[in-house]
Amino acid sequence: MNDAAIEYWFDFASPYSYLSTAHIDVLARSRGLRVLWRPLLLGPVFRAAGWQGSPFLQQPAKLAWMWTDLERQCARHALPWRRPSQFPRSSLLPARIALAHSDAPWIARFCTAVFELNFVQDADIDDPAAMHALLTGLGLQAETVIARAQSPEVKQALREQTERGRRRGLFGAPSFFVGDALYWGNDQLEDALDAAADSA
Amino acid sequence: MNDAAIEYWFDFASPYSYLSTAHIDVLARSRGLRVLWRPLLLGPVFRAAGWQGSPFLQQPAKLAWMWTDLERQCARHALPWRRPSQFPRSSLLPARIALAHSDAPWIARFCTAVFELNFVQDADIDDPAAMHALLTGLGLQAETVIARAQSPEVKQALREQTERGRRRGLFGAPSFFVGDALYWGNDQLEDALDAAADSA
Repeated sequence: MNDAAIEYWFDFASPYSYLSTAHIDVLARSRGLRVLWRPLLLGPVFRAAGWQGSPFLQQPAKLAWMWTDLERQCARHALPWRRPSQFPRSSLLPARIALAHSDAPWIARFCTAVFELNFVQDADIDDPAAMHALLTGLGLQAETVIARAQSPEVKQALREQTERGRRRGLFGAPSFFVGDALYWGNDQLEDALDAAADSA
Repeated sequence: MNDAAIEYWFDFASPYSYLSTAHIDVLARSRGLRVLWRPLLLGPVFRAAGWQGSPFLQQPAKLAWMWTDLERQCARHALPWRRPSQFPRSSLLPARIALAHSDAPWIARFCTAVFELNFVQDADIDDPAAMHALLTGLGLQAETVIARAQSPEVKQALREQTERGRRRGLFGAPSFFVGDALYWGNDQLEDALDAAADSA
């Protein structure tokens, strides 16, 4: 039995986290690695750094490039893609759901479905009705899952997880921790997985 | 004969351009591609975007990560690396030299040597004496090369090249243009080369 794992830190509002989510589960399993799903909210991380929001929003040229790059990368990986009409979207409710159920056997499917809702369906992911439909589609007791996600303990746990990531040096998403080593960006996903496999 | 080419835009102050410079010549030649060396100054690009300097300087956590990441990437590629005691360094004189001689047969060796001066020797790359020694070491007429680099035409040409890059959407370095398609970051070097080879 192999207990090697990679910590995957992501925000459902982050387009490059959509790319990582589409691949991490298969790539990790092919290396005998477990994925530890670590949803967080980037808003508080950016604000703690003195930013008003995503670094991409500060530089129009960089933001314009990001949309082109995402289209290009999705085409190369044969991933569906639609540029969201709102960016970034609030990701509070799905982040709470993912946090409260990060060990559930359906966590990878749930995360994949939420990212597709945002970046393929161009839909509001913070809407309880949308989450209800999505969870039901996964064969889950939607009301129970949502109620648990909205408990004070889960709300507090998401604040603490976000702050814990920030204190460990995280400044954006997707991010990957292999022990204390931080890998940043979807471009470093395979490097991080290789490092995790090597250190196992 | 193959006239396919990739435009390589870089700043001698940019650490990730050190990585790209170390690899681009060999990787391009293996694909039958010519490298068009396009030095620029990122300072005016950042200022035009309303920034005070490198985006990395705006976020201490990101800057700290960058140094760790560079050390890790250089180790993986068996590239020498020393964290510079000054960042970013002024890169004005070597940029002018590279611009004035971008078609010279020694351009790749010159650029490689300047990046090593900055990121291996930890030395001032804007110092005429340092450039003189470096050019002499490459077997060149250092005084002639430096005099030409400091002519009003070359100074103006560097300003124009920087502005041209910015107007085409460039916002950081290293950047690669394949036609009008912009690839950003050393992580995208091979993608850009593959695209250039495909479109040839």
